[in-house]
Amino acid sequence: MTIHTISPAPLAPAVPTRGRLRPLGLGDVRITGGFWGERQDVNARHTLAHIGSRLESEGWLPNFDLAVSGGLPEGRRGREFSDSEVYKYLEALAWEIGRSDDDELEERFRAVVARVAAAQEEDGYLNTRFGRPGQGERWSDLEWGHELYCLGHLFQAAVARERTRPGSDDGLLGIARRAADLVCGEFDADGRDAICGHAEIEVGLAELSRVTGDRRYLAQARLFIERHGRGSLRDIEWGRKYFQDDQPVREARVLRGHAVRANYLAAGAVDVAVDTGDAELLKALRRQWERTVARRTYITGGQGSHHQDEAFGDDWELPPDRAYSETCAGIGSIMFSWRLLLSGADPRYADLIERTLYNVLATSPAPDGRSFYYANTLHQRVPGTPADPDGTSPRASSSLRAPWFEVSCCPPNVARTLASLDAYVATTDGEGIQLHQYAPSSIRTVLDDGREVAFDVETNYPADGRVTITHTGDADKAWTLSVRVPAWAEGATLRIVTADFVQQRPVEPGVVDIRHAFRAGDVVQLDLPVTPRMSQPDPRIDAVRGCVAVERGPEVLALESVDLTSLRVEDVGRVAIVPGTAPVERDGRVWVSVTRLPVGEGRWPYGEEPQSAQTEPVEVALVPYHDWAQRGPSTMRVWIPLAP
Amino acid sequence: MTIHTISPAPLAPAVPTRGRLRPLGLGDVRITGGFWGERQDVNARHTLAHIGSRLESEGWLPNFDLAVSGGLPEGRRGREFSDSEVYKYLEALAWEIGRSDDDELEERFRAVVARVAAAQEEDGYLNTRFGRPGQGERWSDLEWGHELYCLGHLFQAAVARERTRPGSDDGLLGIARRAADLVCGEFDADGRDAICGHAEIEVGLAELSRVTGDRRYLAQARLFIERHGRGSLRDIEWGRKYFQDDQPVREARVLRGHAVRANYLAAGAVDVAVDTGDAELLKALRRQWERTVARRTYITGGQGSHHQDEAFGDDWELPPDRAYSETCAGIGSIMFSWRLLLSGADPRYADLIERTLYNVLATSPAPDGRSFYYANTLHQRVPGTPADPDGTSPRASSSLRAPWFEVSCCPPNVARTLASLDAYVATTDGEGIQLHQYAPSSIRTVLDDGREVAFDVETNYPADGRVTITHTGDADKAWTLSVRVPAWAEGATLRIVTADFVQQRPVEPGVVDIRHAFRAGDVVQLDLPVTPRMSQPDPRIDAVRGCVAVERGPEVLALESVDLTSLRVEDVGRVAIVPGTAPVERDGRVWVSVTRLPVGEGRWPYGEEPQSAQTEPVEVALVPYHDWAQRGPSTMRVWIPLAP
Repeated sequence: MTIHTISPAPLAPAVPTRGRLRPLGLGDVRITGGFWGERQDVNARHTLAHIGSRLESEGWLPNFDLAVSGGLPEGRRGREFSDSEVYKYLEALAWEIGRSDDDELEERFRAVVARVAAAQEEDGYLNTRFGRPGQGERWSDLEWGHELYCLGHLFQAAVARERTRPGSDDGLLGIARRAADLVCGEFDADGRDAICGHAEIEVGLAELSRVTGDRRYLAQARLFIERHGRGSLRDIEWGRKYFQDDQPVREARVLRGHAVRANYLAAGAVDVAVDTGDAELLKALRRQWERTVARRTYITGGQGSHHQDEAFGDDWELPPDRAYSETCAGIGSIMFSWRLLLSGADPRYADLIERTLYNVLATSPAPDGRSFYYANTLHQRVPGTPADPDGTSPRASSSLRAPWFEVSCCPPNVARTLASLDAYVATTDGEGIQLHQYAPSSIRTVLDDGREVAFDVETNYPADGRVTITHTGDADKAWTLSVRVPAWAEGATLRIVTADFVQQRPVEPGVVDIRHAFRAGDVVQLDLPVTPRMSQPDPRIDAVRGCVAVERGPEVLALESVDLTSLRVEDVGRVAIVPGTAPVERDGRVWVSVTRLPVGEGRWPYGEEPQSAQTEPVEVALVPYHDWAQRGPSTMRVWIPLAP
Repeated sequence: MTIHTISPAPLAPAVPTRGRLRPLGLGDVRITGGFWGERQDVNARHTLAHIGSRLESEGWLPNFDLAVSGGLPEGRRGREFSDSEVYKYLEALAWEIGRSDDDELEERFRAVVARVAAAQEEDGYLNTRFGRPGQGERWSDLEWGHELYCLGHLFQAAVARERTRPGSDDGLLGIARRAADLVCGEFDADGRDAICGHAEIEVGLAELSRVTGDRRYLAQARLFIERHGRGSLRDIEWGRKYFQDDQPVREARVLRGHAVRANYLAAGAVDVAVDTGDAELLKALRRQWERTVARRTYITGGQGSHHQDEAFGDDWELPPDRAYSETCAGIGSIMFSWRLLLSGADPRYADLIERTLYNVLATSPAPDGRSFYYANTLHQRVPGTPADPDGTSPRASSSLRAPWFEVSCCPPNVARTLASLDAYVATTDGEGIQLHQYAPSSIRTVLDDGREVAFDVETNYPADGRVTITHTGDADKAWTLSVRVPAWAEGATLRIVTADFVQQRPVEPGVVDIRHAFRAGDVVQLDLPVTPRMSQPDPRIDAVRGCVAVERGPEVLALESVDLTSLRVEDVGRVAIVPGTAPVERDGRVWVSVTRLPVGEGRWPYGEEPQSAQTEPVEVALVPYHDWAQRGPSTMRVWIPLAP
């Protein structure tokens, strides 16, 4: 494992002190447009303002003012974890300021930090829900109080700020450090032998140790990781696995329990494993990732099958119509996978990140960036009801996107991820560049030997499978550009055009290393076949037996009732794909040949095989899953039955 | 619709003042053994004592003593609805005393009534959770407080007692009337325009009006029914449909929301519709039953697909592995169907009752009557953990039966249903007897013209399909004996043997009327074919596409992992039925031919069709679903995939 000694640190979330790969960060990578550039733009122009406005109107930011004025606990509004939304908003602002250097956002950022700063108590404690007369005592409800969880998000915000504006005088890093010092004093090896009911402090502390160089924070993160699985939290109806307090992290074989908690804990555990050189722990986490991906992940990359406890189900329990697939669980999965990718360079981690980005992260926000999905169902049986644009929705809504939720973790989580997305595009191993995600972008960095390398990426991906990498700097000796060929991209080709030669060859899924002393104008062109394809589920996934899903490149497609008018059927539940037919692309859309599903006409739905006639096949168009529910209430399904 | 003027009233739950059929009740029907007789015996000997003991040790009965001693609210234990479990226990005792005339149970009954009586306040109010200093105000939390719900169960207990021991001096009917009078004063047409968040008061008041003749109670029940669907309860995360407050009862098209609430409300609404002659309301309820049975009911008769809100899902949303199918919802469905059967005589209601009795009610209690299922899953993916015999389990447990639950509605609900089961066997229309359920039993009643009719039923049903009805009295003119041929019983035959003739003929599913002046010794013999059969699901039930279930008579069968050892597979998830094979009966068990399910070996479970080889077919035995999980932890499935 390489120990990183690079300075300055990359402008990126998750900058481990060792590992195979290092993120390049916002300083070295700039997404310049395309699928993600447009979404980052909407995020910067609309989503951040929307979140800021809701944090005010819901009272979650004013709670900090009440802490100063003495208006707590009477005047406090919001759930016990509402402080964390303010911190995620700060983190999103920090990354966006790092990207765009926007003065207005900078002003907003400083104003919010000032209000947070004022609420911090003298000894460093910071939470609007606990500790004052009339409130619960500090750390008195570790199962549900979320105090450490909130601080973890505070630390991530402070880290984002310090990485993008090192040494800034806004004071956020100081606030974080004082709070972290208090946490270490309270919970260190001689202190309270306890953990938080919602993991997050671990990843926050590990990252804080990286920007401050203070190893106490890393040690504290490690303690929290190691304390999971000892049953220190009270048992609850869903069992201690809900909190991942059922089994030590290094003994677990799969992610389980609450899907956001599980992924945040796993991400923090990778940080600890990598920074402390704990190969055994890292191996355990890789094993957990393998089984989770093989048995507990939706085709969209979404995770979590239970609405009741927002949790993973058992192996193979992946109902499309009750998919919870929380947006935040998808983001947590990206955090976990990204850290494993940095530690070990296996392209399968980047494959899952890509899948989750296109089919969970991109699905959550509406095109205007002002409403969101919290849960991301794969089958909507009844049309949803449009959400009140001024209201809040129950958190588990999976009908139509809503502007805000009573539990509103997802909107600011989407915002901070989009604002830092440039950092997930490429990495360096010191001797070359690894390109993991394809977006129009400009990349410029310095290798370990001091050579500058630079190239631009042009692509219409995923609409088109061609990725053109044009070098803009001259190298005097060879270095390695590595490109990822996604697992689905059987039949990809690579073409290299330099002043001296032209080379074209087929490439297999995985990583393709191209070692060359690239000169300005040299082009590497990757062609990924984005022909639509049908995918079958493993037969152990009972809920989608006898169905297929259609995918195109990294995008999962869906059948939406608004596209069914030609067939005169009431909803997507009455449609089946004609066996032996393949999806075709025409007029910029993907079409499949369907017929009416033969159904029983009985009054009792079990008995003889239904014999009702099938109709003549007709073609219907599919829509990328991330674009569904943008044309009014509809029904939708990703998994489509094959006609008998 | 016939208006009943029969006196004395039958010893039965649900005695409508009009309708096509009248229950015969415990006085006229006696189950004498067999499948249900054994379970009634265990219920009387063990379950009632078990419940009584737990009501003491959990503090739910002592709460009534605390109400007297002034120990409330500090000392109160249990959830807000715990009083209702005491009342269901009283109802179960009342029926059992009616059946067996047991002195010890009578003593227990009176002792409990005395403690309840002492807690009633002067104005008739009765609840241990509200109304005292330090507690919430009366009726201040109609969404979740369950005060009216608890009283509904009190009324049902008082009705059971009054029907089985008319005019008893124990005082329970007086307690109920005082509480009912208070409710009418508070909630009548000039009073509070409100409903309870959990339906039950409606059925309780309607029945109380029947035993007392006081039409005010019926009017109040009607008011509560009519007030549903006006949104008087606060909206919640799952919507007002959870409480059935989303839509007026007479406008709804299907049962929805919390499955127990929905069925209790529907049962009460039938009572109101019938007793007030409201044909429109009755028609609406029949329509709701039709659609609920056609689209929202498991093959077991179980209802409710959501763990989160214990609720019905959308049409066709019937996941076997997340089947909630709460025992109490099954009992509520029996209550609803029974009332519709009485009102209209359609044998399909009795069909569903039979299915639910054998596959939900019989599944809940363990053979020893001391542990229960709360939820009744149709697919257990991981072996359960045996419950602590002295502990309580989370309410949603679907692994192994548990002795008690934090929400322990199911055990006393099972107990009261088993204790009154004789009343569901047969009815009269005044001119004849309708036999709905087949159990060894003795039936003796008086027709409207004063003639006594009597017969014994002998059967080993459902192990065997032969039902032998031997007349034990002489009739001087013809009367009609009607027997139900279940919908599954294609190929049934009927044989009549009298002194004068022997007749044998095939009979179709439905009702078979036999009009004859039966003499003692005359025999009617019904042969129902209980050959095992495979059932296919309607293709709109996505979750079980490509699977079959095996049924035998009224019993649904299941594949349990303890029967799979010969196949060397880890669990039921790896097994598929060989297409084209049929289940066979041998050595008293049903066997199916299975092979290993071919599965993918990949690390990502979506893509190409798996090509792994199938194994040689082997035969494995199935178990009646109600008998599963009696041989230690296991995995289980009702729906078995067909091999590709």
